[in-house]
Amino acid sequence: VLILVLAEAALETVPEELWSHPAVRRHSKRQRKPPSQLILDRSLHHQAMRRLDDDSKRGRPDITHFVLLPSTRLPRNYNRFIGLMEQLFQIGKVPSQGETLLKLEHKTLRQLLTETKADHILTFSREGKPKTLKDAVSGLQPKQRPAVIVGGFPRGHLSETAVQLADELVCVDSEMLEAWTVASRAIYEYEQALSLPKKRISKN
Amino acid sequence: VLILVLAEAALETVPEELWSHPAVRRHSKRQRKPPSQLILDRSLHHQAMRRLDDDSKRGRPDITHFVLLPSTRLPRNYNRFIGLMEQLFQIGKVPSQGETLLKLEHKTLRQLLTETKADHILTFSREGKPKTLKDAVSGLQPKQRPAVIVGGFPRGHLSETAVQLADELVCVDSEMLEAWTVASRAIYEYEQALSLPKKRISKN
Repeated sequence: VLILVLAEAALETVPEELWSHPAVRRHSKRQRKPPSQLILDRSLHHQAMRRLDDDSKRGRPDITHFVLLPSTRLPRNYNRFIGLMEQLFQIGKVPSQGETLLKLEHKTLRQLLTETKADHILTFSREGKPKTLKDAVSGLQPKQRPAVIVGGFPRGHLSETAVQLADELVCVDSEMLEAWTVASRAIYEYEQALSLPKKRISKN
Repeated sequence: VLILVLAEAALETVPEELWSHPAVRRHSKRQRKPPSQLILDRSLHHQAMRRLDDDSKRGRPDITHFVLLPSTRLPRNYNRFIGLMEQLFQIGKVPSQGETLLKLEHKTLRQLLTETKADHILTFSREGKPKTLKDAVSGLQPKQRPAVIVGGFPRGHLSETAVQLADELVCVDSEMLEAWTVASRAIYEYEQALSLPKKRISKN
């Protein structure tokens, strides 16, 4: 099992301080939903977001969307994904009935890692030790429940709290990589460390 | 140089035989554009698409979008990407003025490969010879201008014409992989064959 954590993801509903902003009110009217139920999205709320603290790390649900696409079977259509996320924040799970696909839980990153019983935490950060992604991920192979942490925001760094939880903090490129690039390469290298690609083609 | 071709991509404007369909007319009205200028999209035109030949391979612009995201700096927002594609089909290039980012040309796959001076063509297909993606792509390293062909459609196979152009036809998994998975892994393995990840971290 590889535990993939997209930490501090730029995915949230529109915060209360923006509810009265004209761009948010227009969006709310068009969607026929109250602002509290809309997902914050820089492509729609750019002007309004200037009012926010730490705004450069926020309002990029597309990052979470792309990261989930290489790893799960969520809707590929962006507008449907946003609809699903709005439902997730409103009801706390998706779908509202039947077998749960996604659920929303309030907990710290530390609690999450404890609950998932992660036995080794590899965190990607520009502030880490230089190492190729291949070397970093293949080192996880002997672990039972390794966790990989990738920041789910457009710019900036992981919080100090997140950094301190890492057993290993690595920097895999001299420039910033997209979250989905790091996540999909980490999954692929982990599959290679387990020789999965070879096993899968011999099934033919 | 690695030449990446997304062949037979499920990206086109709404074909004339669907212009009168109610779903297309609604979409046209909402977008304030004639049906001829809209991009065919299964998530919007599912009902209408039943009228089309070969419909299971068509109407998935999101596939092209995701493949371009790992390899270029196109807009990440899906709706903006669609707007750009509509402009591309209408005007033939994007942006309409200044330095061209994308252009539309009418040519066969054979013509394209000749013009790009590809000296080796590696094509991914479920019908190819079983080989890991890593082995297939690392074999391109000695070539000057290798081309990699990935099908840009949701299901089905590459046309016989496309298959016949391949110098090497390989199958890298026992099940169908997403186009963006194959494209992003091919780029990554080519980078590794050139030792790029190692060179890049030593820049730190």
